[in-house]
Amino acid sequence: MANSSCSDVKVLGAWPSPFVMRVRIALNIKSVKYEFLEETIGSKSQLLLQSNPVYKKIPVLIHGGKSISESLIIVQYIDEVWSSGPSILPSDPYDRAIERFWAAYVDDKFFPSMQLINTAQGEEKAAKVEQVTEGLVLLEEAFQKSSKGKAFFGGDRIGFLDIALGPMLGWLRAIDKMGGVKLLDEVKTPGLVQWVESFCADGAVKGVIPDIEKLLEILEKMKGN
Amino acid sequence: MANSSCSDVKVLGAWPSPFVMRVRIALNIKSVKYEFLEETIGSKSQLLLQSNPVYKKIPVLIHGGKSISESLIIVQYIDEVWSSGPSILPSDPYDRAIERFWAAYVDDKFFPSMQLINTAQGEEKAAKVEQVTEGLVLLEEAFQKSSKGKAFFGGDRIGFLDIALGPMLGWLRAIDKMGGVKLLDEVKTPGLVQWVESFCADGAVKGVIPDIEKLLEILEKMKGN
Repeated sequence: MANSSCSDVKVLGAWPSPFVMRVRIALNIKSVKYEFLEETIGSKSQLLLQSNPVYKKIPVLIHGGKSISESLIIVQYIDEVWSSGPSILPSDPYDRAIERFWAAYVDDKFFPSMQLINTAQGEEKAAKVEQVTEGLVLLEEAFQKSSKGKAFFGGDRIGFLDIALGPMLGWLRAIDKMGGVKLLDEVKTPGLVQWVESFCADGAVKGVIPDIEKLLEILEKMKGN
Repeated sequence: MANSSCSDVKVLGAWPSPFVMRVRIALNIKSVKYEFLEETIGSKSQLLLQSNPVYKKIPVLIHGGKSISESLIIVQYIDEVWSSGPSILPSDPYDRAIERFWAAYVDDKFFPSMQLINTAQGEEKAAKVEQVTEGLVLLEEAFQKSSKGKAFFGGDRIGFLDIALGPMLGWLRAIDKMGGVKLLDEVKTPGLVQWVESFCADGAVKGVIPDIEKLLEILEKMKGN
């Protein structure tokens, strides 16, 4: 299944969504061409409702007419179907389990706190900042253990956990730049500060993670609401 | 890695936990002997705190001194490490994605509602019963599609989604028996009613899912608190 025509692979998404970015990065790693179907924020297309009837959420990957939902599940599917690029998950079962553990942590704990920092106020904001900071310290430790001095969680190349966390930290840099908080910190999280630079400069990521200015515009709008 | 001595594999758990049951069923499928270290409800052992410092929760699998947490991640690890029994995940990537999707649904949506039925009252209880019933109807549809007329989600043999859902429905039967609600229903979910019987009678499951009377005792205690 190394060759797929572009029309055979579709991604339902929206460019600012970090979950959609994961899917696009994974497809780029495998050099799979795909059609990107942009959903309008605030409304849901018929195709989305049909393709993901349980959650009605992006991203959805449609491959040969079959739909797959939930970004981390899609990334694993892409890794298993296409051998047209390097493996995304590590080959060792223990390393795979560790990357799956931290990827689930990003979705279950880290992102929900991070998402609220921008709009929360006062004590609630302080609590969210503390949660995110604790999460970053844990992820820094995981990075030091996994990367073993190399550029990525996955070693020399971007892997599963890089893809899971990278799009979130793209947003985190924008939140930091907006002011008021300093989350990514060279003292507490020196590895992650360097890692996010390597990640955003990678060939599979370029063009997927938007310029920080575009993200700042969205944050301003969210704050205004 | 087909042979492991018993002392090489440990499970930190507690017998009533459906998440712990998943791990034990997966090890049984692979005929892996293990030492079961029962945690006392309400306190956490030093070994648990060291082995799962992020969540401090059971189950934890300790294999050759390395710890793995989160039940669905552990089941995938077991499947990848031991070839001493049938595969737990399907071989087709799309089928794997579908089973992963529904297993995550069980953890994220189904179980949290189910858990509250026993203790909730009035309107809250009615809402939880409705959510669980909706979930069961979705899972019935998934069962009809996946099993293709066979006994299990995985076909002729117990697979990943069977392991994810089975221990929850063991509890659901106890909730039904306790009275007041009727969740597993032969009209709405005929496939699941039959499936839960096949599941509980399977060789890898027997002795792991407790007798309904033992579960009823725990439900009564929870209600009393």
